[in-house]
Amino acid sequence: MAETDKKEYVVGVDLGGTKILAGVFDSQLRCLGRARLSTKAQRGPAEVIKRIARCVNDVVDECDLSPKQVRGVGVGAPGPVNPESGKVIFAPNLPEWTDVPLQKELSKHLDLPVSVENDCNVCTLGVYHAELKGKPRSMVGIFLGTGIGGGLILDGKLYSGFNRTAGEVGHMVLEVGGPKCGCGNRGCFEALAGRAAIFRRIQAAVKEGQKTMLTEMLGPDLEDLRSGDLRKALRRGDKFVEKIIEEMAEYTGIAVANIINLLNPEVVVLGGGIIQQLADDMMSIVVETAIDYSMNGTTKGIDIVASDLGDDAGITGAAVLARMQPK
Amino acid sequence: MAETDKKEYVVGVDLGGTKILAGVFDSQLRCLGRARLSTKAQRGPAEVIKRIARCVNDVVDECDLSPKQVRGVGVGAPGPVNPESGKVIFAPNLPEWTDVPLQKELSKHLDLPVSVENDCNVCTLGVYHAELKGKPRSMVGIFLGTGIGGGLILDGKLYSGFNRTAGEVGHMVLEVGGPKCGCGNRGCFEALAGRAAIFRRIQAAVKEGQKTMLTEMLGPDLEDLRSGDLRKALRRGDKFVEKIIEEMAEYTGIAVANIINLLNPEVVVLGGGIIQQLADDMMSIVVETAIDYSMNGTTKGIDIVASDLGDDAGITGAAVLARMQPK
Repeated sequence: MAETDKKEYVVGVDLGGTKILAGVFDSQLRCLGRARLSTKAQRGPAEVIKRIARCVNDVVDECDLSPKQVRGVGVGAPGPVNPESGKVIFAPNLPEWTDVPLQKELSKHLDLPVSVENDCNVCTLGVYHAELKGKPRSMVGIFLGTGIGGGLILDGKLYSGFNRTAGEVGHMVLEVGGPKCGCGNRGCFEALAGRAAIFRRIQAAVKEGQKTMLTEMLGPDLEDLRSGDLRKALRRGDKFVEKIIEEMAEYTGIAVANIINLLNPEVVVLGGGIIQQLADDMMSIVVETAIDYSMNGTTKGIDIVASDLGDDAGITGAAVLARMQPK
Repeated sequence: MAETDKKEYVVGVDLGGTKILAGVFDSQLRCLGRARLSTKAQRGPAEVIKRIARCVNDVVDECDLSPKQVRGVGVGAPGPVNPESGKVIFAPNLPEWTDVPLQKELSKHLDLPVSVENDCNVCTLGVYHAELKGKPRSMVGIFLGTGIGGGLILDGKLYSGFNRTAGEVGHMVLEVGGPKCGCGNRGCFEALAGRAAIFRRIQAAVKEGQKTMLTEMLGPDLEDLRSGDLRKALRRGDKFVEKIIEEMAEYTGIAVANIINLLNPEVVVLGGGIIQQLADDMMSIVVETAIDYSMNGTTKGIDIVASDLGDDAGITGAAVLARMQPK
């Protein structure tokens, strides 16, 4: 077999509502290159699947590889997935995605083996295998971004539950009657500590006259507010932003405690855009609050840590998924 | 082998802070008889273990059996347990119970194989095997009594987590800053819907002038208030009690939703004294609220039901545990 025919590479794909990310990974799970394409979700599933295929071909070419050197492709999809059938059951942010046979169709386009899983499960797999080297028996991943999602590793394996929806930590109610959530309920973790909720809270406070450096940085409407801006304002001593971040960290700590009380995992890993930007400022508060709200005896030897994978968690986990396919 | 030498019976023991219950079960998991002894927890572990042995011998004798006909004994203990070593790690309501080798000591006293598990895990086992016949792949048991506890069956097996403390549903925070809980935190499920919390709330309301039939039934101090009294007052049309029970059911439904969002189990079973007395009045509200607060797509095909085992859940589950011992 010629050197170039060795199928030692995998491609990990992170399918989101607005963008498709793909990365080529070698046998050591090192990322050799990335490609990115807009999702164009409004064009419907068939077109989106073609775009995923294009993004995969782009990144393989970008890395000067031939598809023959690729062993398989893993995809994280933004909704519940049946990994056996490879179907996306539904995807709240992708119009018309109901029971879409993503695995079968993408595999046809690429002529490569494809595996599909839920995106938060995929990120959890990435953290578990790439960062924790698969060592803990149980782990919960919590990803704080615009929304909040999660994934569970129990007894060393992904756990996705009866309807493949396990890990919806963002919609755990922490404050009955609390702020309205996108899901229609009130007081969900996501409505208390997700980026969208936090940004709405900041914008409302500013409208009511709250002073903050954010308006100096971004103008009075705070239109392009991002997690990184919170970090910058905090570094400059903005007390309002400091309080907002503290609250976010406290709610996150309570959510972690609820998970520890219920599941008692060996490791809890926090990731996502908010943690990527604000881990230094949030993690000590998260850990302290989590221990405070966990029952006696539950936290001994348990780690609560931030992930370093950042935006790469999705493609890395999808690469792990691809590597799980039998050779 | 003589008929009477067939080891077809097991004894299930429910060790509580105030009482020890034991039951003899046949191979069909039918209960042939029960015995009961006060725990006398203040006398320390060694004495309590002797009392458990006495209670086991009592119930075997009560059923006209000889210990030779008993295959083994299962015990549910009120704290985290390491089932491999058979040690009770600690027990909040039993003084001096830290790393107590209950399995070894009780086995010595009885000259019989003994298995030990956490009491809520044992109740969950009982519901899972005796009521659900072990059919669902995953199940969560929630037991509402003075406090609130729970247990998890995942992939057909008890799941107890890294420190053997998984299933502490009672200390899931549902209302940040809510009423004070026995654990020291605020807003726990137990502080919102456990019997002790509910009774305190009723007593406080009565002190502030709230009218209720409960005072006619029990006197102004409501000293001997029990779950059954709530049922009686409700049947007589007591609007205040109706509201209290509705709230309790709603909080329970939200807790169930949090569990469905996080774990997506096939079945959620509610048990314990409160449910035994008030299932007819609470369950429809619990189910409706749980579905309302669960994410889209998570509850399809999932059952949320009340257990019929009542007070027998503990001894039944302990009998199941005993039957799991290799012959």
